[in-house]
Amino acid sequence: MPLLTLTTDFGTGSPYVAEMKGVILSAVPEATLVDLTHAIPPQDVRTGAMLLDQMTRAFPPGAIHVAVVDPGVGTARRLVCVGMSTAAGGGIFLAPDNGLLTFILRRGPHVARTIENAALWRNPVSPTFHGRDILAPVAAAIARGTPLDSIGSRVDDLTLLDWAEAKYGPRSIEGEIVFIDSFGNCVTNIPLSHQCFVKQPLAIRAAGRDRVPLVRTYAEAAPGTLVALVGSGNWLEIAVVNGSAAASGIALGLPVVVSW
Amino acid sequence: MPLLTLTTDFGTGSPYVAEMKGVILSAVPEATLVDLTHAIPPQDVRTGAMLLDQMTRAFPPGAIHVAVVDPGVGTARRLVCVGMSTAAGGGIFLAPDNGLLTFILRRGPHVARTIENAALWRNPVSPTFHGRDILAPVAAAIARGTPLDSIGSRVDDLTLLDWAEAKYGPRSIEGEIVFIDSFGNCVTNIPLSHQCFVKQPLAIRAAGRDRVPLVRTYAEAAPGTLVALVGSGNWLEIAVVNGSAAASGIALGLPVVVSW
Amino acid sequence: MPLLTLTTDFGTGSPYVAEMKGVILSAVPEATLVDLTHAIPPQDVRTGAMLLDQMTRAFPPGAIHVAVVDPGVGTARRLVCVGMSTAAGGGIFLAPDNGLLTFILRRGPHVARTIENAALWRNPVSPTFHGRDILAPVAAAIARGTPLDSIGSRVDDLTLLDWAEAKYGPRSIEGEIVFIDSFGNCVTNIPLSHQCFVKQPLAIRAAGRDRVPLVRTYAEAAPGTLVALVGSGNWLEIAVVNGSAAASGIALGLPVVVSW
Repeated sequence: MPLLTLTTDFGTGSPYVAEMKGVILSAVPEATLVDLTHAIPPQDVRTGAMLLDQMTRAFPPGAIHVAVVDPGVGTARRLVCVGMSTAAGGGIFLAPDNGLLTFILRRGPHVARTIENAALWRNPVSPTFHGRDILAPVAAAIARGTPLDSIGSRVDDLTLLDWAEAKYGPRSIEGEIVFIDSFGNCVTNIPLSHQCFVKQPLAIRAAGRDRVPLVRTYAEAAPGTLVALVGSGNWLEIAVVNGSAAASGIALGLPVVVSW
Repeated sequence: MPLLTLTTDFGTGSPYVAEMKGVILSAVPEATLVDLTHAIPPQDVRTGAMLLDQMTRAFPPGAIHVAVVDPGVGTARRLVCVGMSTAAGGGIFLAPDNGLLTFILRRGPHVARTIENAALWRNPVSPTFHGRDILAPVAAAIARGTPLDSIGSRVDDLTLLDWAEAKYGPRSIEGEIVFIDSFGNCVTNIPLSHQCFVKQPLAIRAAGRDRVPLVRTYAEAAPGTLVALVGSGNWLEIAVVNGSAAASGIALGLPVVVSW
Repeated sequence: MPLLTLTTDFGTGSPYVAEMKGVILSAVPEATLVDLTHAIPPQDVRTGAMLLDQMTRAFPPGAIHVAVVDPGVGTARRLVCVGMSTAAGGGIFLAPDNGLLTFILRRGPHVARTIENAALWRNPVSPTFHGRDILAPVAAAIARGTPLDSIGSRVDDLTLLDWAEAKYGPRSIEGEIVFIDSFGNCVTNIPLSHQCFVKQPLAIRAAGRDRVPLVRTYAEAAPGTLVALVGSGNWLEIAVVNGSAAASGIALGLPVVVSW
């Protein structure tokens, strides 16, 4: 029973998503088709790359993931299909080669191919909608058993995003806000695990404050309090209890520093 | 063929919903997974409770419903699993024990259990995302046949919301606006059935007007008219024909009185 | 394996959509249920008609499509069920008879029936929610094999929208903006194919400019440039590269002229 997922910046309720579903279900009626999100900010490849990694981690290794955030649609940019090794969690990913797969590729060994075999595409192909006319039918063909080596030739030079890595000092980590969720929680690029809590006291600097209290979960401080905590993806996160940290003025790119 | 539904306040298109889907489909690939809504206002347990009841009434008795509106995530608040009797319409509900199941529990006989058996959970459990790490895997385990008595011990003291019940006088019912839908229709907590129309004339007071005309359906009055009618859930509703009652200033909590 | 789709103006995340899903899955548990969109602007039959056509084109001929944009719910307006011939692409469509099926009916030969056989409906029927109480159960009955001739009697006078057709002059086509997508791309009612590009030079007048450059795909001009192109539905479209044409002031109804 093939499982395919869709991630786009088309907007929730977009008719373009519906068109892609029609193409896939026409070819693979028995498929389980799952919307991951269509609310990636338009043309925001960086946010798309980050969320695609987060959203697909818990999926089974046989899943086929189609991702479309594609400001270069119709240009010479490649479309690619990447098969992840079992050691890297498995999964097959189809996307434009613009960095959208940056964090997927980091998971471990994989084989990447350009999507070249036009016999698998819809005909004609619209120069503005490769998601419907190339990615959807190729994903459907893979779901029906088309081997990956008939999709196109191997490539080893996929585009990777310059990613703002946290900077590690002897007694500190410096990072920034990289994602804001629908509650207004502000997620940083500072990886932390819950074990840090017991090892040593940490000082968190963010939003102009020297010591943002570090808590284990939202409800440990009074409503309205600005807190830091380790979020569900194991990144340090700045939140306001029962409120929105984003509404209090914290924004993408603002610095956050952990020291000890 | 197991049927699972998801209701959250994570926001439409939230990556957190996608993560829960991955957990469930990894364990139960053959599941039918249905989004009820992810647009519950953040941390609004009262609206979540009301809509969960409305949305699940027509589902088959074998359905498993996962609901997450959970401002107390990570605290000592319990997570619970409730099996409804056939007389109460069936269904299995998993949610935090914070009142979210108030209207479900009122349906009739049921057995409630705390979710305690950590062998069924993901490991480790994030203190900020029990939806993904506890509720989703336990719901999947139930879908695969795990008996309810292995989830945890029975409890009989589930949290119920204080609900603003309509007040019944000898010749009147007083209530208030409790929900506003996407059209701007304002739903009250006054239960009325269509039979009331034929029994006796009713006077409706709302929005500063003494006699809001009572109609059977939206199109019975001229566009722009403020009307009262019995909505599809059998609650009295205030609406503007071809427009939005909410946009005309009617808001949650405003009083509505029916007299005869 | 029955395939049913849902299109409404109820709003993404609407509890009304969830109720319709419950009705359908209670009757046809094995159904594949696909949300096309619930983001049709409230009561906007014209946009609903246009998008329903666009969204359903790629679906398999056996699909059953339920569409609800229904300002006249509960009035004497008919509900209809239309079976499209194989020559017209197939598909069964259920909708109010208010013009929502205008572009579907144009596809070719079909048989239309009023939905009259109340034995197939829920009981009682809410006068404000025929989507849940009539269309959903009738669609489910069809999915389970109920023949179309038991739904109701044949009709040949379905309501069609007055549609602003583009006007063809000897050396020009005059149209207007009829849809704006989530990127802010403004789609016109001027049909054009990519072949036009090679045949002769075209001059595009829109948004107060005499010569909007015609490109093949978004990325062929510099970011911020106002361009015209043939969109994925083969309609002329006005866009801003890496931006939003709608945000630059282009709106529904504005004229666009192509001349040569």
